[in-house]
Amino acid sequence: MRIARYEAHGDVHYGVIDGDNVAAIDGDIFGDYTVTDHVHKLSDVKLLAPVAPGKILAMGLNYTSHIGDRPAPPYPMVFHKTPTSVIGPEDTIVRPKEVERLDAEGELVAIIKDTCKNVSKEDALNHVLGYTCGNDVSARDWQRRDRNENNSDWWRAKSADTFSPMGPWIETDLDPHAQHLRTRVNGTEEQNESTAHLIFDVPTMIEFISRYVTLEAGDCIYTGTPGTTSNMDDGAICEIDIDGVGILRNSVKLES
Amino acid sequence: MRIARYEAHGDVHYGVIDGDNVAAIDGDIFGDYTVTDHVHKLSDVKLLAPVAPGKILAMGLNYTSHIGDRPAPPYPMVFHKTPTSVIGPEDTIVRPKEVERLDAEGELVAIIKDTCKNVSKEDALNHVLGYTCGNDVSARDWQRRDRNENNSDWWRAKSADTFSPMGPWIETDLDPHAQHLRTRVNGTEEQNESTAHLIFDVPTMIEFISRYVTLEAGDCIYTGTPGTTSNMDDGAICEIDIDGVGILRNSVKLES
Repeated sequence: MRIARYEAHGDVHYGVIDGDNVAAIDGDIFGDYTVTDHVHKLSDVKLLAPVAPGKILAMGLNYTSHIGDRPAPPYPMVFHKTPTSVIGPEDTIVRPKEVERLDAEGELVAIIKDTCKNVSKEDALNHVLGYTCGNDVSARDWQRRDRNENNSDWWRAKSADTFSPMGPWIETDLDPHAQHLRTRVNGTEEQNESTAHLIFDVPTMIEFISRYVTLEAGDCIYTGTPGTTSNMDDGAICEIDIDGVGILRNSVKLES
Repeated sequence: MRIARYEAHGDVHYGVIDGDNVAAIDGDIFGDYTVTDHVHKLSDVKLLAPVAPGKILAMGLNYTSHIGDRPAPPYPMVFHKTPTSVIGPEDTIVRPKEVERLDAEGELVAIIKDTCKNVSKEDALNHVLGYTCGNDVSARDWQRRDRNENNSDWWRAKSADTFSPMGPWIETDLDPHAQHLRTRVNGTEEQNESTAHLIFDVPTMIEFISRYVTLEAGDCIYTGTPGTTSNMDDGAICEIDIDGVGILRNSVKLES
């Protein structure tokens, strides 16, 4: 099932995708709900980021193909992304004027279903509502400079406004480790890899993170990016395309 | 004025402190509200963290006395703390079993009043509702190990559950750069410094952060800790005492 969040006539709804339509949901997608007969054409609504997360955790260096000649992390390498950086499908990624290199990182994103702590690997997927596509937009100069010159975290490199596109919807029936992920910038394929090659898989991430931090319904885990990442210039179109989920498309605009 | 958030008879309210009493607020503390004649004794309510922030940004290395022989950061050194780590006055800081050094960092915390971006220094304090006391609880072994061995941010070192005590209330009428801050662990004074000695002052932080990240009502900025920090063992009582604000007191318990 595909659950979308959308705006129609100024109101925000959740709904279930059915072909070219979306049927509004009455209730709580993380709890009890019913699918109503209130149906819109998808072309008549604006899809939003499928959740408004309380927090986002993200994985670094989680595909061998991305690590290159760097050492693999001995345990899951986690960082925070800030919810104010979330945008939805077709929204615009704003490229800061002072950044020279703004990379697209295509990622599978897991969406947490309920409040949980100290989750075991075996139980972890029971706490996932579903999956969407994410772009872990990364300002490389800030990422390097803040760490090297400022002893700082990647707070702005990964969490400046518009740096966390997500969508187009949540796919609830998906094997997170058997999908192909492709990233295209201006139509050129820049990343292409199976999520089977995650170093730390989704249950391992959830076990590790939830040992320290309580996860809540709607929290998102960006699972890491494969291969080589590429720059997004002013005017670029970036697509994150994950089999079984869909395509997240965003344009890029230089900060005015 | 002092604005508190509290629980009485199972319901959560905002209220205004008046001596030993709190008068319930009707409305939005970030917008329009009235103070009602519905009054509780403070001894009859449980004070909560004064806001439930959407995000928390924190400053590192922001007092010369704390930096020691490390170089001063060339620009504000920022990191994220996660809202699920927030606890209130008298709540318990849980000391993880695997941590050898869990330090108290007493800090003045600024609470943002409204949605703002690209704020100038001159205008910055107009976007602050007020100030409270914060403890930027820091697991030093994770802080070092995650950065050195894992190329990671301080995600768990600063944001594990219970690592962001705040309170006891918001003081709206305060010069943020003319207060004395004291941290006591088991009654021994461990930190004692004036907020006049902040390297990057509150307007500078807000200008810098809001250049990259939209700030919203209730967002918190931990402004950095002075001097030398000290470990909190199982059973410790930690107090962050800021002139003009009040005392934030928490006990520490080893993870069971």
